[in-house]
Formats: sequence, structure tokens, C-alpha cells
Amino acid sequence: MSEPFRVTRQIRFADCDPAGIAYYPRYFELCDGVVEDWCEAVLVERRVLHLELGLALPTVELRATFTAPSRLGDRLDLLLAVHAIGRSSVQLSIDAACGGEARFTIDCTQVLMNMAEARSVAWPDEWRKRIEAVLGRQSPEAGS
Amino acid sequence: MSEPFRVTRQIRFADCDPAGIAYYPRYFELCDGVVEDWCEAVLVERRVLHLELGLALPTVELRATFTAPSRLGDRLDLLLAVHAIGRSSVQLSIDAACGGEARFTIDCTQVLMNMAEARSVAWPDEWRKRIEAVLGRQSPEAGS
Amino acid sequence: MSEPFRVTRQIRFADCDPAGIAYYPRYFELCDGVVEDWCEAVLVERRVLHLELGLALPTVELRATFTAPSRLGDRLDLLLAVHAIGRSSVQLSIDAACGGEARFTIDCTQVLMNMAEARSVAWPDEWRKRIEAVLGRQSPEAGS
Amino acid sequence: MSEPFRVTRQIRFADCDPAGIAYYPRYFELCDGVVEDWCEAVLVERRVLHLELGLALPTVELRATFTAPSRLGDRLDLLLAVHAIGRSSVQLSIDAACGGEARFTIDCTQVLMNMAEARSVAWPDEWRKRIEAVLGRQSPEAGS
Repeated sequence: MSEPFRVTRQIRFADCDPAGIAYYPRYFELCDGVVEDWCEAVLVERRVLHLELGLALPTVELRATFTAPSRLGDRLDLLLAVHAIGRSSVQLSIDAACGGEARFTIDCTQVLMNMAEARSVAWPDEWRKRIEAVLGRQSPEAGS
Repeated sequence: MSEPFRVTRQIRFADCDPAGIAYYPRYFELCDGVVEDWCEAVLVERRVLHLELGLALPTVELRATFTAPSRLGDRLDLLLAVHAIGRSSVQLSIDAACGGEARFTIDCTQVLMNMAEARSVAWPDEWRKRIEAVLGRQSPEAGS
Repeated sequence: MSEPFRVTRQIRFADCDPAGIAYYPRYFELCDGVVEDWCEAVLVERRVLHLELGLALPTVELRATFTAPSRLGDRLDLLLAVHAIGRSSVQLSIDAACGGEARFTIDCTQVLMNMAEARSVAWPDEWRKRIEAVLGRQSPEAGS
Repeated sequence: MSEPFRVTRQIRFADCDPAGIAYYPRYFELCDGVVEDWCEAVLVERRVLHLELGLALPTVELRATFTAPSRLGDRLDLLLAVHAIGRSSVQLSIDAACGGEARFTIDCTQVLMNMAEARSVAWPDEWRKRIEAVLGRQSPEAGS
């Protein structure tokens, strides 16, 4: 079995608020970038997804718990896990930690959409296979 | 009884993504601005909260459902409701609609914090009274 | 003669950095919103410009001077002036002040572009007339 | 002689606008991150600068030329050069290219400030020496 999907991101000056900590809407941008990297690694580059295939993978539901604040310069370890796949949806989680200390967890559901027709699209077989291959990877008990 | 807390915000070019719709992390910035306005109306200006009192009102939990996309130029009606108050926390929801069509709902829990000591602070009596006065305002059955 | 183009914007928590002052890249977003409002008032809604006409008005040159910092809660008065019009370009300036104190000035050149063909487009006659009508409005000596 | 300061950044979905190209205020965030990396490499981590030393390095003047648009997924090569040092200021430029094609150039002046007193601070000797050591590195004729 291969490794779970993991990236590291540094908290930038641009990410912090006047309270001196990471501003939570920026966490969602950061995590969207993680989904972007995962999408490229497992399915296709987001550039191709959007500009060539006319598809998108918008977030339809999201739940976040912020455990401890992050500060300027912190290097966050972000771990993406795939929990379930539906006809046109996928359930992901992203856990963020810094030096082993939990910072936040985001659970989200993305849906594959045809942008011009504004309707959901069933996963192409090849993509479904690839997502199923990484289901529940870093937490076997969590897979559906 | 007074009115629920309601503001209108236009979706700007800066809020939209290459799919031509509002980028969801920007919704959280926009809603944080609504909490900012509510905070000023009910408690104190955020400037005073942060820079004079050394307090903050960070989000510790959040849940969002995105029902339909918003587009460049859409004017969103945002309705903030207060659902519960704890020792140092408050539960809010923000419902966004455009021309009567639901766009998204955010439920969140904010906690009053002392920034220098990084610990939660019980609501001052006066602020507690003001929050209790607006509890469940636009949805009486939702109050705790 | 009608009035110059003027809007007011409040500096939000989302606009401020860990130094407690407005983060300058956010000034450019804010000013892009002012150009958006001006565009709607003088030419056409940006929604129509982009989504219906397939045009855009990107910035090709920009110069900014930051005179004094802005803080959380400051209400900025933003004054947009039109200085010159070319075949497909327009030169604008935005002066920002708070309570009469200068904060920053941005001078920029925008070019009307056809997005699909990625080339500049001459101003339609009607739009040229409307821009010429507001040329140098609040600073007559600055008009070309 | 050592190498000029060079980093690579990918244009993210979050950086792009409804016209499908990088939104220029995001370029300034991105370049601020480059200055952040340069500051850490040559002087001190920005975290230490802000949170421990109470200093900041705000931009006081800025000039940008946008030569060609960048698109989702583009990898920008960003080259930072130091052109001049004053009592408390430094003049920088950042040139961005993708696959050898010029995208934009930013020239800016930053000033070392004491945040609490809101006044400029002369460069400490050690920092002045380090900045002088990298002056005009990748364009010797541009050094002062």
C-alpha cells in the first residue's frame, strides 16, 4: 500500500490576522490548494479539469474544528484522506498539525460538476477506480 | 421585539474563481465581516475588542452547506441569528440568499479569548445580557 | 458638471495583517472594487462585461504610494479620477484618505481586452464618449 | 559571487479570477511571500522581525508592469534583486517569468519600521552589511 497524501505549507504573513494568528478563511484557501495537489496526483491537473474538460469539483458541505491557533512561520503538516465515494461525490478530510500538535480538521464533500450545464456528473470509470484505490488509505477503519 | 440582524453584500470580481462563481473561502471572509458588523451593533467595535481590550472572538467550530452557486454581481442577503450562549461562547448561524434563492448556510461557534494569555474569557455581564436579548430572534423555536 | 466618483470603504479584520494595519495587497482588491463600481456607473456592470460581452479591463501598469497606514475600522474615502483615454486604454487614479488624512494613491492603466482572442479592443464609440465626459473631472488641470 | 534570489511559485485556483487568469492583487501577496523568504534568507525570519523585534518592513512605494497574463497551473520563476539601500529603506525588484516568457515586474521600496512608535528605524549595522553584500547581484549595472 502506498502512503497517504501529505503536504507541508508554511503560514505566511498574508495568512495572519491582527490577532497575530492564521485567519481561518485562509485555512480554506490553503486546504483548497491541498485538494488541488491531490486532484493532480490522483485524477488530473486542475487546469485541465477546468479549462479543458469544463468540469469543476466544488465543495457542497464542509465541517471544520479549529483546535489550536497557528502563527506566522508555522509549518503545517497537512494530511488528506479519502473517506467515501458516491456517484459524483467524494468525501475528504484534511488534518493539520504543527510539530505533532493538532491545529484543525476539515471534513468536506466535493461534487464533480459540468460547469456549462450546472449539473453533477458521474465519476468517469477510470477516475472512480483511482479514487477507490486510495479510499481510507491512512485510516483503514474510516473507509466506507 | 426588534428585527433580526441582516446585511447585504455584493459578490465582487475579487470573490469569484475561474469557474465564474464565488470562491467558497471568500464566503467565510464575507461572513466574518457580517460577524464583525453584528459584534459592533450588539457588543463593541472589533477595533476596540482587539486593539484596546486585547480580546478576540475566534471561530472554534464551523459547518457550512453550499446550496447553489453565486455569481459575479449577485447581491446576497445575509441573515445572522444567535442560537445559544455559553460561559465564553456563542453559537451563530448565517443564511445567505439571493432574490429569495438559498445560497449557503454557515453555523459556527465563536469563543471570547484573551489574546495575550491565549485562554477563554467568560462573557462580561453586560455583554451576556445583550446577547441574551437577541437570542433566537428570527427563529424563536431555535433559541436555547 | 457632475461630481467626481467617490465611495467609502471600511477596513475590515480580513484586510489587516499581524502588524495591525491594512495589508497592502488588500488595498488593490479594494481599489479593484472601486473600479468595478465606476465601470458599472459609467460603462456597464462588470458581470455583463465579463460574462456576456467576453471583455475584461485588466490593469497593465500600476504605481502606488503608501503615505500612512490604515487600521482596523478606518473608513476610507476613495476618489477615482480619469486622467486620459487611449484607443483601448484608460488612465485612472484612486486617492484614499481617512478623516482628511492621505493614506495612499494608486495610478493605473487599464486596457479593454477581448478575453477569448487575448487582444486589446478599441473603445466602442458610446463608451468612449462616456469616458471623455468624465475625463479630469475632479482635477481639471490633470485632464489630457 | 553567490546566486541571485530565486523562487518558484505555482498559480493556484485561489489566485485566478473569472477571466481565468491570475488576479493581480494576488501577485502582490505572492511577491510579498518572496520578500518574506528573502528576508529570512538575508536578515531574519519575519516571525522574529514582527513578533520578537517589534519591527516591520512595509512597502512605501511600488510600481508594477504586467506584460502577459498567467493562467491556472503556471509555474512562475520569481527573481528578486536588491537595487539600493538607504538609511532605513531598501529598493527591490521582482521579475516574474514562466518558461522564459516575462509576466510582470514589480519595483518597490520597503522601509524598516518600529511598529509601536510608528517611525522608521536605521538598519542595524549587521543587516546593512548583509544587504550591501547582495546589492545588485543579478544585475551589476543596477547597483547603487
